[in-house]
Amino acid sequence: MSRYLSHRFWGLEPYVPGEQPHNRNYLKLNTNESPFPPAPGVIASISRAEIHRLNLYPDPDSRAVSESVAAHFHLDPNNVLLGNGSDELLSFCFQAFCDAEHPACFPDISYGFYPVFARIFCVPVHIFPLDADFHIHAADYCPAGGTIFIANPNAPTGLTLSLQEIEIILKANPDHVVVVDEAYVDFGAESASMLIRKFKNLVVIQTMSKSRNLAGARIGFALADMELITDLRTMKYSFNPYNLNRLSLAAAAAALRDDEYFQGCIQKIIEARAFITAELEKREFQVLPSLANFILAKPVIPGEIYYLGLKEKGILVRHFQQNRIKDYVRITVGTIDQMQILLDATDQLLKEAG
Amino acid sequence: MSRYLSHRFWGLEPYVPGEQPHNRNYLKLNTNESPFPPAPGVIASISRAEIHRLNLYPDPDSRAVSESVAAHFHLDPNNVLLGNGSDELLSFCFQAFCDAEHPACFPDISYGFYPVFARIFCVPVHIFPLDADFHIHAADYCPAGGTIFIANPNAPTGLTLSLQEIEIILKANPDHVVVVDEAYVDFGAESASMLIRKFKNLVVIQTMSKSRNLAGARIGFALADMELITDLRTMKYSFNPYNLNRLSLAAAAAALRDDEYFQGCIQKIIEARAFITAELEKREFQVLPSLANFILAKPVIPGEIYYLGLKEKGILVRHFQQNRIKDYVRITVGTIDQMQILLDATDQLLKEAG
Repeated sequence: MSRYLSHRFWGLEPYVPGEQPHNRNYLKLNTNESPFPPAPGVIASISRAEIHRLNLYPDPDSRAVSESVAAHFHLDPNNVLLGNGSDELLSFCFQAFCDAEHPACFPDISYGFYPVFARIFCVPVHIFPLDADFHIHAADYCPAGGTIFIANPNAPTGLTLSLQEIEIILKANPDHVVVVDEAYVDFGAESASMLIRKFKNLVVIQTMSKSRNLAGARIGFALADMELITDLRTMKYSFNPYNLNRLSLAAAAAALRDDEYFQGCIQKIIEARAFITAELEKREFQVLPSLANFILAKPVIPGEIYYLGLKEKGILVRHFQQNRIKDYVRITVGTIDQMQILLDATDQLLKEAG
Repeated sequence: MSRYLSHRFWGLEPYVPGEQPHNRNYLKLNTNESPFPPAPGVIASISRAEIHRLNLYPDPDSRAVSESVAAHFHLDPNNVLLGNGSDELLSFCFQAFCDAEHPACFPDISYGFYPVFARIFCVPVHIFPLDADFHIHAADYCPAGGTIFIANPNAPTGLTLSLQEIEIILKANPDHVVVVDEAYVDFGAESASMLIRKFKNLVVIQTMSKSRNLAGARIGFALADMELITDLRTMKYSFNPYNLNRLSLAAAAAALRDDEYFQGCIQKIIEARAFITAELEKREFQVLPSLANFILAKPVIPGEIYYLGLKEKGILVRHFQQNRIKDYVRITVGTIDQMQILLDATDQLLKEAG
């Protein structure tokens, strides 16, 4: 920190993304990336001709992609805003819709970035503890007294709220925005996107990083009533109008078209999730019933020991220091082969631990 | 605007980027893009193999590119931070280094985004008028009493400060950060990058959008003392750690390597700038002596009429409504052929105006 940093950021602890060590080739099961390459149509979309045009600015309105996203969700392009990953759009929501009178409300165990966004935009926070089984209870948020952020499925638990529960929260908070962060929704949960026309206070945020195999392209999108999208667009145009580069825009449009490939990848992840869940339960791990592309599991040895043991064996999973989940690890669901490698390493670790 | 938007943003007017109409194929001389494609090495760097890896997150530390940038400027990688265009890095500077006690100080005529950044981060502004000939006077900023933002060359004037003048400002403001925005520096001005080791309060921001022909890839970088870079990195990691996508990182590394192509493009722009300046002066336009890839010119007919007339003929230039420059237009310097098309259209307009 320099002495020039504004006092309001002293002590700010930034978000820590999943580690990416460069010293060794790890099996990376720690950042919820897809194990599959982008769709064939995406690969074709990044053509030599597109690359030759990189001297020109991208369309700041992301018009073509907004139209594709809108059509996909049976909405109007005015209900859509593209972002540089869902993180950027989430941050715009904290900035636009939270302030001293509108604290940010979210669970104690959820996406670790929420408290950081609140901190950097200097907005107060109201924390709602999950129950003992890590569930969110809609009733806790009725009303919440601020802008609500619900990850559905929640991270890192993988647990979901039903659409009925989301609707209960929306109805009980008409004077506050409810942001439903659906980064992992495509792996089996229900999207609240169909509620956009009904609720003027709903923002749904999705990403192409996980289910569309495009973490490297940085594409997220927000779906909401036109007035809320206008607010978020104001944030974008006051910060970085050209936030999406040309090649990512080309990739995004193509990714939405290739539905068969998308469904195939999703199906494989769901199968691998069932496989790894059953296999770890055989080994007496407690595994939360996830509808995401990761599982939160409590090993029979301490979470941190298991994480370090796997790392030693060339496998990265994510361990969190937060008290309620420090006995757990979050494991990205990859291919069945990758899950088998994890199981083999796990068996070795359990044997070594006696 | 929705009723949910935080009160602090009511009336916020976002930045307006140069228009990109979709109804017609214009000769675009309004957003200071390069008329040349990216370097051959850049085009090769975006390989099929790289595109296949888009399922994986980019390196949030942009390590490889930071090392290339550092080597290019004879600095350490700890003196470098990559950004999603220079706009993102400028916004981080407003956020990190300005607050109620550290107003943002900049000229009345400069990059139109500065007042918007100040507004969105709720920091006060101290405006320093340019002189009658649109020059910045270093003495005006000695001291400035806040965080200083100087575009060098300035936009949209194209006029420059010497390194000696920048140094005078740095020396007179040891307790405040001085941000030198060098988006256009490669077209003939002197970079303050060589002062980084000497001044702990200096941030130099450059972009690959203009001189490196990569507006569509969104790559900017900040150069500064390690402590200031740490502050900016804290902003990035509290907002959007994966702000640069994989393909842009590949392009950025390659763009720095291809020095011969870079120098060739620059030279052509400098020649075209001399050509268009001389030709417009023959037509009694007042043209400010620009060291950027654009010129600010006062036509013999009103600026707005000239702008609208050119648009009618399929050529876009930029006209600003600000009072001091409303008689002028900003014209991007393209190829000699493009400048000839502009001149032909200009001659027609002057003839029509009688």
